[in-house]
Parts: sequence; C-alpha cells; structure tokens
Amino acid sequence: MQIKGNYVVGDAQAVATLYETGGFGRPRDGSLQLRFVEAAYLLSRGKIAILKNGKELDFDEFIQFAALAEDFFELKYIVYKDLKERGYYVQSSATDFRVYPRGGKPGKGSAKSYVFVRSERVPIPLSELLGLINEAQNVRKQFILAVVDEESDITFYDVKRSDAVGSFEGGMSAPYPAEAKKEKPVKAVLFKERVILSDKETADLLYNRAFFGRKMDDERLLLSLPESLYLAENGVLELYEMDGKRLSNEDFSKKASLIDSEFSKKYTIYKELKEKGFVPKTGFKFGTHFRVYRKVESLDKIPHSEFLLNAISTDYEFHLPATSGAIRLANSVHKRMIYAADFGGKREYVEFERIKM
Amino acid sequence: MQIKGNYVVGDAQAVATLYETGGFGRPRDGSLQLRFVEAAYLLSRGKIAILKNGKELDFDEFIQFAALAEDFFELKYIVYKDLKERGYYVQSSATDFRVYPRGGKPGKGSAKSYVFVRSERVPIPLSELLGLINEAQNVRKQFILAVVDEESDITFYDVKRSDAVGSFEGGMSAPYPAEAKKEKPVKAVLFKERVILSDKETADLLYNRAFFGRKMDDERLLLSLPESLYLAENGVLELYEMDGKRLSNEDFSKKASLIDSEFSKKYTIYKELKEKGFVPKTGFKFGTHFRVYRKVESLDKIPHSEFLLNAISTDYEFHLPATSGAIRLANSVHKRMIYAADFGGKREYVEFERIKM
Repeated sequence: MQIKGNYVVGDAQAVATLYETGGFGRPRDGSLQLRFVEAAYLLSRGKIAILKNGKELDFDEFIQFAALAEDFFELKYIVYKDLKERGYYVQSSATDFRVYPRGGKPGKGSAKSYVFVRSERVPIPLSELLGLINEAQNVRKQFILAVVDEESDITFYDVKRSDAVGSFEGGMSAPYPAEAKKEKPVKAVLFKERVILSDKETADLLYNRAFFGRKMDDERLLLSLPESLYLAENGVLELYEMDGKRLSNEDFSKKASLIDSEFSKKYTIYKELKEKGFVPKTGFKFGTHFRVYRKVESLDKIPHSEFLLNAISTDYEFHLPATSGAIRLANSVHKRMIYAADFGGKREYVEFERIKM
Repeated sequence: MQIKGNYVVGDAQAVATLYETGGFGRPRDGSLQLRFVEAAYLLSRGKIAILKNGKELDFDEFIQFAALAEDFFELKYIVYKDLKERGYYVQSSATDFRVYPRGGKPGKGSAKSYVFVRSERVPIPLSELLGLINEAQNVRKQFILAVVDEESDITFYDVKRSDAVGSFEGGMSAPYPAEAKKEKPVKAVLFKERVILSDKETADLLYNRAFFGRKMDDERLLLSLPESLYLAENGVLELYEMDGKRLSNEDFSKKASLIDSEFSKKYTIYKELKEKGFVPKTGFKFGTHFRVYRKVESLDKIPHSEFLLNAISTDYEFHLPATSGAIRLANSVHKRMIYAADFGGKREYVEFERIKM
C-alpha cells in the first residue's frame, strides 16, 4: 500500500480482504483508503505493508511519519487500538470514531456512539463540547469523550445534556412552604457572610419542611446567601444590615457578589433548580458549588443527594484533570456530576459519567 | 457582667460558678475574663447577663457587637458551640481553641488538639498552615482545621506532616530492576507528549517488575515524562527526538516543561517518592498529580494505591472548596491525601484527613 495525502491507499484486493471482511477503511473508485490509525493498526498486526516513495516503512517509522502528518495521531491510535482490542467495530473519520454496539457492524444495526479523543493536557471549552454533543444528539448517537492521560491510559466519559434525558425534574411540590410567607415578610439580618433569621416559627417551617439553612439554636436559622436572596425575592424575608438599615434585594445581591465572586453565576442556577422542584444545598464537602436533592420531605429521613453541580460561565474551559476528579468523586458516592451555564434565555446542564467500554 | 476590651468580665462569684465548675474563661486578679464566644454561649443558655454602658444586651445585640469587634467571631462561635454541644471541654484563646479529649479537662489530662477555625472563603497559604502545624507539633498537640462553609456547616480536618507520623516509607527494594540497566543505555524516543521504548526486554523488565509505563503492544512501552527522565538520569535510557537527534536530559526536561508547565514541580517530588521506595503513577483519574503505591511486586496483584498526591509550590494557597473535594475523594476511596512542596533542601509533605469530632 502507498501513502497518498492523508490516507494509506490499497487496491481492489485490499477492498475485498480488509473492507469487506474487517470493515477497515473506505472503498473509493475501486481502491481502499485507510486512515493512518487504521493503517498503523493493520501494520502492527502484519496485515499490510506500507510504502513511502518506494521504500517500505516499519512500524516505528510509519507512526513517526503519521504523528508528524496528523494532529493527535498518537492519541487517536491509542484509543483506536484499545477499542478494536475490546472487540468493537470502529469506523474512523477525520475528527472522531463511530463505534458500533458490541456485536454490531455496518449492515447490522447502526453506530451507537461518537468517540472524541482528547489529551488530558488540552482543555475543552464549553462551547466546543456543546457543539460536539449537538452533533451526536442530532443523529441520536451517544457522545463519548475519551481522555488520554500522561501515562497513555484512557478514561471514557458519556457526556450529555441532563435535560435531554428527561429525568431532570425535582420532586418538591413547592420551592418553600406556603405558610412561611406571611402578610408582611419576616426580618432577617446579614451577619457578615451569612444571614440570621430570628423568627422561630418561620425558621422552623423553612428548615423542617424545605431544608433551608442550618439551625443556629432553637430559635435562629442561619441561611446561606443564595437561600436568603431567593426567600427575599419571593417575599418570605426582608433583609437588613446589622445596624438595622434595610437592604434591598439588589443591594444584597451586590454585597453577596463581594463576599463570593461567583455568587451571581451560582444564584441563577440555584433559582432555576428551586423552580424545577429540586433542593440545592452547598456542595462544599464535595468541592462543588451544590449538592442537589430531588426531594426532602422530612428531616428525619434526608435522602442522599442525587447530583453534584458546578455553575460555570459560558466561556468556561474544562481542565480535564480537575473535571476527572469531580466526576470520580461524584460517581464514587453514587451521584451524577453536572455543570450548568446560563446562556441568557436558556440554561445548559451538561452531565459527565465515567463509563467502562 | 461587663464588656471590657476584648473580654466580658465577671466577679469572684463568676470564677466560682463558671470557671471552677464549667471551665469557662480565665481568672484574673479575682475576676473572670470570658472570651466573646464563651460569653455568647453562656448568654444563649441564660447563664449570664451582659451589660454594655449600663444597658443589658440580648443575644442578637451581643453577637452583632462581638461580630463587629472581633474578626471571624461568628465562625468561631459556630465551631465553639458545636464542640461544646458534642461534650468537649474547650479552652478559648485569641487565635484558636484548645480541645481536651472526650472526658478530659484541665487537671485531668492535657488538651489533645488545637482547633483552628477558617471560612471556606478564605484561602490558607501553605506557609501559614505549616506555621500552625509547627506550633501544634512543638507541644505535641494534634492540629485540627475547622472549616465553616457557606451554610454554616463545619468540616473538621486533621492536618499533619506525613513524615512526622513515621509511616512515610515505600516498600520497593530498588527504584527500578537492576537488570534493566545495561552497559549502554537503551534508546527511547520522545513521541510528542510521551516516550516510546521499543526494546522489548527492557520494556518487559520495567513494566512487569516496577510498574513503569503502559504497554503499547508486545514490544513497546509508553512512558510518561517523569518516568522517562528518571530512567534517563539513572542511565537506563538514552533519550532521542523523533528525527533521531540525541536529547540530553537537560533538553528533555526543558521540552517536558513546555508540554506540562507543572513538570519541574512534579518531577522533584516524583524523584523523591521513587527514592523513598514508593511507586508513583499518574493520579489523573482522581484529579491529582499522582496516585502512589507503597509496593507493586507483581502486575498480577496490583494493590490499591495508598495515597493521592499533589505537588504544590511553596507559595501555594489552599482554596478550601477544592481542597475539600480532593480530600473527600481520597478518603472515599480509602486513600490518604497529601500535598508536597519542595523547599530546596527539604520537601514538606502535608496530609489532610477528614475527621468526625
């Protein structure tokens, strides 16, 4: 076979032996075009010989040539070989792999997944990731991200829109107990980085029935900044400074952003989660912005939270080692890991799950 | 009782009732000096009344006064109250708490721990943390970091020097199999972000006996950048570029730092871990620089790695939400979480363990 441009090209005989029986390459005008990863794989198994300017290349020579000619060739080869050895039928294209379900191949079902290969060292912007998810979603394929780490090990992630899977719905009938909203909102005081609500009746209702805040003592409830603003915007609370000065919701929001530079980003998502019927609480113990419960009916039997969530900006880049750690933690405590960004009119919820291929 | 400077001061009667029976405050010239957190705690339980300029303050008034007068009063109060309610004997000082073991109190054993309180929002520089650990270590106390999160919940960490506990020793008899070192070092090629070693015999020795690299195929081993430099510095390998040009260890190191900006920091620690008899491998799956095995004798029974490790710079600051996530992940997979910094002549290994009080 000969190297021609971005392909290794074989004759009609190759079409019969490699394409028709093994599904390698693509027939074109009676000849066979192999991608470099396919050619390297076949070469390593002694199935083909590759000529360049009349000289036969050994495996090391060919992969060095391919690594210089094609971006990320070495990463793609590592993943391609791994998938083939696990028995998958893999179609290679310029940007990704199409992988058939186990036992499937062209003519026998269709490809199930797009596999996209990335080095752990190259961050993925959210916008790029959403584009890739869209492409897969449009043709009803699963999108799989294959990350190659510095030791050439591969970690596979199933990445999807949480709301595309139809299970993104909380179980609370209301975001706060209706009785907590009095004719006149109850007073609460911004106490440095947190808010103290000293009205025992409201405190009990909010805490016992909707898991707001944390009890300071029998009478007082300590509320977080997002909880406080949400309750104030809904007319349950009225916010004050320590010196007794009234704090408008807008001023509170400004102060909150000074205390926590990520406040505004987090609050937009907090609010939407509340409105979807979820119970969001801080994810500090997990290193995330929120841990989120589907439903908390009673404090006597608080269920496990169902997912961990980070609020990110629209220009966020996933730095894969940090993303990997967050997903691993979420999965190891049986939770889903979700990243949420506010695109003005619409919030995007992107979920990562580590999978074994 | 009266507010005087940074104390709430009581008379001889207070010494008898509060200090002698409950251990609150410190006697001074016949009177009793209470820290604000102690006073707030006693006030909330109706044990004392507090006067300011002749006027009695209620609890809300007193804590607002204290929060303005003392930095982080509200955080300290949250932690102090929590510890008292768990039944600990707590001595409050300006900067921290001294906590006695359960059932202990002054005159009955000595304080076991120093508890230092921090908001999740205030990063801790490594230098500050080492200072605090030193202070505790000098008087043989346990150092506990109490982090108050945005919902006023507390997470406790036992923080110590890993090497101070005498268990920081790997189990490998040599950092690489002696037979792998030939008379002339074996050739290995820098292939973009990784290194390919094509000498089957050396590859097998390094992989099977010391868990270096990852097999690419029967003959070839893919090595990470730190593994490659370590083997080259020890005369096992000789490094080359793809075009056949010899790469000195120094040039390789420079190239590695361009590929991975953290390479040099990571390599210093990698090297010391190897020399201590450990087997460090990438921690990518856990979002850390390394996962570290005490000993890998055979690839048929690879044990669980014992700790996760991040190499940090000497001016590193612990951002507590990220630190919390890393510790939680390590502990949830039964590993220790260690941060290592190179102070020139000496490396410091700082270990965090989440504990329940």
